[in-house]
Amino acid sequence: MSKLVIVGTVAFDAIETPFGKTDKILGGAATYIGLAASKFGVEAAIVSVVGGDFPKEDIEMLKENGINIDGLEIIEEGKTFFWSGRYRNDMNTRDTLITDLNVLADFNPRVPEAYKDAEVVMLGNLHPLVQMSVLNQMKNPKLVILDTMNFWMENTLDDLLKIISRVDIVTINDEEARQLSGEYSLVKAAQKIMQMGPSHVVIKKGEHGALLFEEKDVFFAPAMPLREVFDPTGAGDAFAGGFTGYLVRTGNYSFENMKNAVISGSALASFCVEKFGPERLINLSEKEMRQRMYQFKSLTQFDIKLT
Amino acid sequence: MSKLVIVGTVAFDAIETPFGKTDKILGGAATYIGLAASKFGVEAAIVSVVGGDFPKEDIEMLKENGINIDGLEIIEEGKTFFWSGRYRNDMNTRDTLITDLNVLADFNPRVPEAYKDAEVVMLGNLHPLVQMSVLNQMKNPKLVILDTMNFWMENTLDDLLKIISRVDIVTINDEEARQLSGEYSLVKAAQKIMQMGPSHVVIKKGEHGALLFEEKDVFFAPAMPLREVFDPTGAGDAFAGGFTGYLVRTGNYSFENMKNAVISGSALASFCVEKFGPERLINLSEKEMRQRMYQFKSLTQFDIKLT
Repeated sequence: MSKLVIVGTVAFDAIETPFGKTDKILGGAATYIGLAASKFGVEAAIVSVVGGDFPKEDIEMLKENGINIDGLEIIEEGKTFFWSGRYRNDMNTRDTLITDLNVLADFNPRVPEAYKDAEVVMLGNLHPLVQMSVLNQMKNPKLVILDTMNFWMENTLDDLLKIISRVDIVTINDEEARQLSGEYSLVKAAQKIMQMGPSHVVIKKGEHGALLFEEKDVFFAPAMPLREVFDPTGAGDAFAGGFTGYLVRTGNYSFENMKNAVISGSALASFCVEKFGPERLINLSEKEMRQRMYQFKSLTQFDIKLT
Repeated sequence: MSKLVIVGTVAFDAIETPFGKTDKILGGAATYIGLAASKFGVEAAIVSVVGGDFPKEDIEMLKENGINIDGLEIIEEGKTFFWSGRYRNDMNTRDTLITDLNVLADFNPRVPEAYKDAEVVMLGNLHPLVQMSVLNQMKNPKLVILDTMNFWMENTLDDLLKIISRVDIVTINDEEARQLSGEYSLVKAAQKIMQMGPSHVVIKKGEHGALLFEEKDVFFAPAMPLREVFDPTGAGDAFAGGFTGYLVRTGNYSFENMKNAVISGSALASFCVEKFGPERLINLSEKEMRQRMYQFKSLTQFDIKLT
């Protein structure tokens, strides 16, 4: 099976939702992406940085989930990146309360030697120059996926466009797709982003599902309708991890197989929101995964007669 | 083939969108529902009322689309119901500028004798007592579908709950489902509405698709991603008409076949928004319908291996 390199934050989050609040708990894009991808039994390595305050148990947990952490730098005298946010009643909008970059401010990513030949690279949300540095260390990746955020569009657009021009797939949310392209229609937005270089764009619409674009073709996966959404934190990254993990596992990067990858991403995201933080992803069983996939089939598949 | 009775407004609309504005053009829930349902070649009759100002050509057009208008009362000395609205830039929110009830104020619906034995009744958005009167005139309908709006929840809730308790399927938009049920989660909202009597609920989410609920089961159909949405007016009614028309045409009211009906409704709605008013529905060909159905298949169908 091919190997996967993931760069992104490993962090502490403090989250407040209408259902409760947490102290500092494990978070970060690379954490969610890695845990989600690990459910497909792939050889994944996280490239990131934490401080001396990062719990040994969390490192053990990542390893137990089969994630290689040789590229996870620990700066003993530093502090781990910290984010704190509060969700509004609709659970769709959130306010950032605190962002402490800490050790992330001077992060110089290093891809482990054994992973420089990985076939797939997932560049999680981070400074575009950090994403670029990781990509430059790779020997000859066959598939490069990038996730990003409005913050980088507003502050480092030139660097962002440079890295976007070198990737195969961009995953991005709907508002960010509109911001990056200047188009309100998501069909037009995706086409403009593909003109920037990528052959594929995935637009994540949160509770409204996700769209996959390739040239003129489009595929849609809904979010699983849930009785309760407990905590949306990390759902977009869990989606990206499930999407990527499925592609690595199958080694098939055709549009038809990417459809399955989008469903896998949606399944992982649907689990993610059921509990605070990454808790639901950590002990997710194969049986639960399979059941959720069946639910997605029954949610979306129909057999209309076209006579 | 079974017969279909549709009650709802036949109206003049004046519409303003970011793409342009219209003078008074043909509109109304029954118009959109009837035109959409007529694409399935069903025997449909509209029960409604217009004034002496209603153009003979529009009546001819309805007849040419195969719609029975024996139940369309013409009050020569009265004026046709008029609605005027303006869409905001996102095309999802609109402001009502004018509502002139005119002949609708004293509407006393009369179902044509030949249609009292119709198997399916579609109660389009109107005063719940008018919907009730139509239902009371029917002999023994096998399937009753109701569409309604927040206005009736706010002003005639008791009457609305009475008619809801007597129908099989409620179609309603997401905000209205939340308002009617007092639940934010659409899964919980649908369950509460089913406790009011209906065996099925369809929640219309506009550009975010539609959900069909039956007991614990759920099916989702996306809206077709379009390069441009020209005018959303009537899309919800076109959906209801496509949904109902498909059910009448097939005569199969199982959950599996209702999935196909939801796709049919989504297809009709996707055509409806491509032009101002009902224009796109009027001359829609069977070939275009079939092509759109294929697009929905390719948009949603996947073949993941659950191994």
